[in-house]
This record gives sequence, structure tokens and C-alpha cells, in this order.
Amino acid sequence: MKLIRIGDPGREIPALLLEDGAALDLRALTRDIDGEFLAGDVIGRIEEARAAGALPVLDIAGARVGAPVARPGKVVCVGLNYRDHAEETGAAVPERPVVFMKDPSTVVGPYDEVLIPRGSVKTDWEVELAVVIGREARYLASPADAPGHIAGYAVSNDVSEREFQLEFSAQWDLGKSCETFNPLGPWLVTPDEVGDPQALGLRLAVDGETRQNGHTKNMIFDVAYLVWYLSQYMVLRPGDVINTGTPAGVALGLPGTPYLRAGDTVELSIDGLGTQRQTFNNA
Amino acid sequence: MKLIRIGDPGREIPALLLEDGAALDLRALTRDIDGEFLAGDVIGRIEEARAAGALPVLDIAGARVGAPVARPGKVVCVGLNYRDHAEETGAAVPERPVVFMKDPSTVVGPYDEVLIPRGSVKTDWEVELAVVIGREARYLASPADAPGHIAGYAVSNDVSEREFQLEFSAQWDLGKSCETFNPLGPWLVTPDEVGDPQALGLRLAVDGETRQNGHTKNMIFDVAYLVWYLSQYMVLRPGDVINTGTPAGVALGLPGTPYLRAGDTVELSIDGLGTQRQTFNNA
Repeated sequence: MKLIRIGDPGREIPALLLEDGAALDLRALTRDIDGEFLAGDVIGRIEEARAAGALPVLDIAGARVGAPVARPGKVVCVGLNYRDHAEETGAAVPERPVVFMKDPSTVVGPYDEVLIPRGSVKTDWEVELAVVIGREARYLASPADAPGHIAGYAVSNDVSEREFQLEFSAQWDLGKSCETFNPLGPWLVTPDEVGDPQALGLRLAVDGETRQNGHTKNMIFDVAYLVWYLSQYMVLRPGDVINTGTPAGVALGLPGTPYLRAGDTVELSIDGLGTQRQTFNNA
Repeated sequence: MKLIRIGDPGREIPALLLEDGAALDLRALTRDIDGEFLAGDVIGRIEEARAAGALPVLDIAGARVGAPVARPGKVVCVGLNYRDHAEETGAAVPERPVVFMKDPSTVVGPYDEVLIPRGSVKTDWEVELAVVIGREARYLASPADAPGHIAGYAVSNDVSEREFQLEFSAQWDLGKSCETFNPLGPWLVTPDEVGDPQALGLRLAVDGETRQNGHTKNMIFDVAYLVWYLSQYMVLRPGDVINTGTPAGVALGLPGTPYLRAGDTVELSIDGLGTQRQTFNNA
């Protein structure tokens, strides 16, 4: 299933996106696609309501698409999780996941404008596979337990300001938490439809030029390992988002490639998870 | 004014704590002490309702005290912000604030049990002055603008697992985000009652032995500077919490002083902001 949120920021309507592009209004089931809804039997409840004819068609033509999860409690990020990206940044391949956080209020819709912070000269892109938590994960016994805690997957742009991230202090969160720095979506795709999360191609282009062309099989720590690992140190709660790292091809790793400037358009896609597109503008 | 939240986790009742220890129920004004409530004219609304006799007495005897802010959107932390603490950890005095984040779901009540994570051997304490945001702060023009964006102050224990924080990777958030790692309160004290936030003594004792005895005048970057600085890189929203750093005296900086073990009790206080006390237990 593909879940989607349609409408103006803060007033999105939860919907199910069908194969033919039509959408069904989920408001008979839930006020929003949030942690509380994702903690339940999402697929079962939607199938039952649909079979009962309780989900009316929703006209989504021309409407804004929001992030497919409302108000995530936290956004946990994993750095340097693709061997080629670790190499391009000059970092050693990590022995443990490198974990940092973004301000969860940076999450915006997949086609929303992204703001280049004032004073920024190094605003960069990062296509990532986002994992959305469906069931609380706390001290999981093994990575094999992880799938039961995942509500679905989405495309994520872990936008990063490299000067703020790397030069202003040794802690990265400052350059990861700027306003609008986490476009998410267009869809939250349930695990049954995604299949193997380690079998997905990821792509990113800036103004039509391909910059990243990676594959989740090249993650150093795979999705199940990451969910298990994080659950040893923090409680993952329904609606939480994990950005699982980016492959090679960011501006930081491409000497001579310009960072993002006002007017640039970035397009990201992951197999089966759709495409997002943002135009950057000055804050 | 002293704002307080009374009751079981997730079901706290918002209240005003009076000088004589009695409390007035604020539910006629707000469902909770959260970002939405703090964004309004808190003092004016409470004074008006009280004058009108609209705030009944609330019996708080024996009841649990929650964190004084419900569901903060983010917890931003400033590291190494006291000269003596930077020195004890062997770090250079920073030229810019060192900014990292805690999972906001780590915020618990001031007397709640704190859990030592499984596998932890270096669970440490940090008494800190917490700033709670009242009005959105985005690209403030100068530190002089900061006070208008502050809803109040509280005692915070920025509990830290040093192995997770410092040895597992160079990013600190992993050792800062464990379950229950941010006791907050007992009160949210409004700025008019706190006066100068740089004129407050902070103290922490473990099992009755004083470990930290600092003063906010020794912050490297003061509260107004921090709010201004952070607003250049992220949007501070009502209900967000800023932990402004800890003075010297943490276990990390005291060779021979044991880290926390199950059964240890930590007591923290800041002038005018009250006292919190937690017993540590194994997760």
C-alpha cells in the first residue's frame, strides 16, 4: 500500500493511493497518518474499510502533497553508511553506525520549496531510504526482529549545510536541522509492497544532471541491523523516522561541483518509493 | 509564576504552584502546558483567570510531578559551555557553541526513576539550566531579542552515557538519547520571576555527596546568545527545550569517581527553580 497526505501544511488529509493514481480518503479510519495510526494494523484496517465501501474517493488533482507521516517524534540519521560515500568524504568506513539527529520539524513535503539558510555557501543534497517505525522498538533481541517494527519506507532528502555541519563544531546536528531540510515522501510504502529494502536503486539529479546513483545493497549496516542497533540505545516509537544514509555523489565529495543555489531543482527517486522534486530558494 | 504538571505520565494536569505550596488547576485555560499554550500570553491569561476566580484549587498531595512542558518538539543541547567543564573533559574551550540533540521523548518528570541502559558502564549526570521557548525564534537580529522568545526556565539533568557518547562514534546523540535520560522540572518558572538567568547557582549531589557546584555566570555563551545563535541555524518553536550546558564535576571529569549504578540517588537544584531527585535503576 501507498499512504499519502494531501493538502496544505498542517491540514493534510490522509489517503490511500491506488495503482491507477486515484486516492481514497482515510478519514473514516484516522485523523492523520501519525504514530498512533501506524501503531495499529494499518493494512488490515484499510483493507477491511475498503471492502466495506467506507473509503470515499478523494480528489487530489493539483493538491499539495505533504510528508507521508505527520509530526514524527524524532528523526534519527545514520552517517557514512555507504562505503563509497564514506570514501568520498575522506572518512574511515565506520565500525559502528554513526548516529545523529535532525530537528523533526524540518520534515516537509516532497515537492515543497527548500530554503538555503542565510549565510550558507555549502547547502548539499543526500538521497536516503527512510524507515518509518510502526511498533515500539526497545532492546530488540536481534536484527531478525526488526521487520515487525517497521511501518514502511519513503524517499528522504537529508539536506545538509556542510560548513554548519563540519566546520562550526565537531557535532553535525547544526548543519542538518535547518528549516525545511528534510523533504519526505511522496508516499509511505508498506513493507509487503517494498519487499527487500536492500534491493533498491536510489538516484538524485540536480537540474537534470545525475549526481547520485546508488543501491541499498551497498549499505554498510542494513535496515534490520540499524533498527536493532538503535533499539539498544534509544526507544524507537511509532512515527519515528530513520534516515539510513546516502550513497556517493554529494557536493561535499565532488570537488568542482557547486553546492546548491537559489533556483536549483533537485530530483530524487528510489525504486518503488516514487520521486520527489524540490526547488531551492533563499531563506 | 511557577507552572507545574501533576499526575500519571501522559495524563498530567496543568497547574499553577502558589507560594504557600497550594496549586490551582489550569484546565479552564488549557488542556496542557505545551507549545500552543506557551505561545500565548501565559502570565496575562493566568492572572486574569485567577482574578475572575476561574482557577479551582487542585489537590496535589502525594501526586507524581511530570516534566513541566508536555511533548517538546525538540531538545537542543549545548556542550562544553562552562569553562571548567570543558577543561575537565580535556576539550578546548569552544569558539562557537557545540550543538547536539537528545531524543525529545527522553524527557521525564523530576522525580521519575532514571534507567541505566543495558550494557552501560558509564552513565553520568549533568545539572543544566533549561530554557523553554515561548515564541518562535527564526533569524533573530541580535541576542537582545532573545528574552521575548523565552517562556521560562527549569532544572534539567542531561543524563549521558559516556561510552555510547564518546567511544562508539564521534557523534554524541547516541549517548544522550537513552530512555528517561532527561528529567525536567519540577517547575517551569517564568522569566519575570527568575530575573537574570546568568545569576543562578547550580548544584548536584550523588547519594548526598556534592559533585557539581557551579554558577550560570560562568557560561561561555550566555542564554541570550545561545537563543540568538541557534535561531540562525534552526527554527526554535514554542515548547522546544534548550539544555544550556553543565559546569564541572561530572564523573567523566573526576577520575576515581564512580559512574552511576542501580540504587544511586542524584539530587539537582538551581536557585529559584527548585530541586529534582532521581533514583537510578537498571533498564
